[in-house]
Amino acid sequence: MTTTYAQARIEADEKVPMIHIHRDFRATPAQLFRAHTDPEVFARWVGPADVGAVIDYWDARDGGSWRYTTAGRVGTAFRGCFHTVTEERIVQTFTWEGMPEGVALETVTFEDLGDGRTRLHATSLCDSFEARDGWLASGMETGVDDGYAAIDRMLEAGEL
Amino acid sequence: MTTTYAQARIEADEKVPMIHIHRDFRATPAQLFRAHTDPEVFARWVGPADVGAVIDYWDARDGGSWRYTTAGRVGTAFRGCFHTVTEERIVQTFTWEGMPEGVALETVTFEDLGDGRTRLHATSLCDSFEARDGWLASGMETGVDDGYAAIDRMLEAGEL
Repeated sequence: MTTTYAQARIEADEKVPMIHIHRDFRATPAQLFRAHTDPEVFARWVGPADVGAVIDYWDARDGGSWRYTTAGRVGTAFRGCFHTVTEERIVQTFTWEGMPEGVALETVTFEDLGDGRTRLHATSLCDSFEARDGWLASGMETGVDDGYAAIDRMLEAGEL
Repeated sequence: MTTTYAQARIEADEKVPMIHIHRDFRATPAQLFRAHTDPEVFARWVGPADVGAVIDYWDARDGGSWRYTTAGRVGTAFRGCFHTVTEERIVQTFTWEGMPEGVALETVTFEDLGDGRTRLHATSLCDSFEARDGWLASGMETGVDDGYAAIDRMLEAGEL
């Protein structure tokens, strides 16, 4: 049986302090690349459905940096720098500013499944298993599921 | 007995794919911070003694980026972005361009030991134990030892 990820699968790596996420979309790799690099598009889908995002700065290129602030609940902010930005692979750092010493290294790749479908693979590498497990226990799946559902809706509406 | 690190100690973490480096200097934290953030100073010490470094770009601030090219053997280059740059802590990404998909997350902190001495703690987090062990087997200790000895000489000469 072929594995499909109509809903995001979020998994803890067994060997290293990493989170893996897999999710299939009815999209091309180029559409998912745009969703992750165009700041206006990114702000429309990232995070839980009841939390809006405002981009503070965003420069999606090798060596650029990014920051966004959330609204709708208690405001908070996330920031990082882009290490690699290509159509196939994005590598960036990630910090929630509520815990400024915590830095994760994130990678997103887009696997073309053919027939207008693409599988997103995302990893997040933390510096300890405690930090990784803290993220897994934080309720992050709500943001992941809501965000990817918002991408689905933009794709269906022809907005991406 | 008090532990001192007159020579660098390079250790493999037992739990996560990380390298730890510890090294003591007759320097203040501010002097070591300058050695790691001033591009003209950095180019004078980084790497093996028989390999020179030329800075291609360097912007040592949160969200800045850096790249340098080596000369003296077969030329190669290293690049990354600065995630955090404070007097106490530098966090940056690191790629050797000979293996462009390999990205490490590096942290350097400066512990004031008093009496004009400072202990440098550096970590390098890889995404697999294989990648980490590859770095440990690469002869990296030559670059580490030679580079820190060059910092010692700059400090003794009053050039830092």
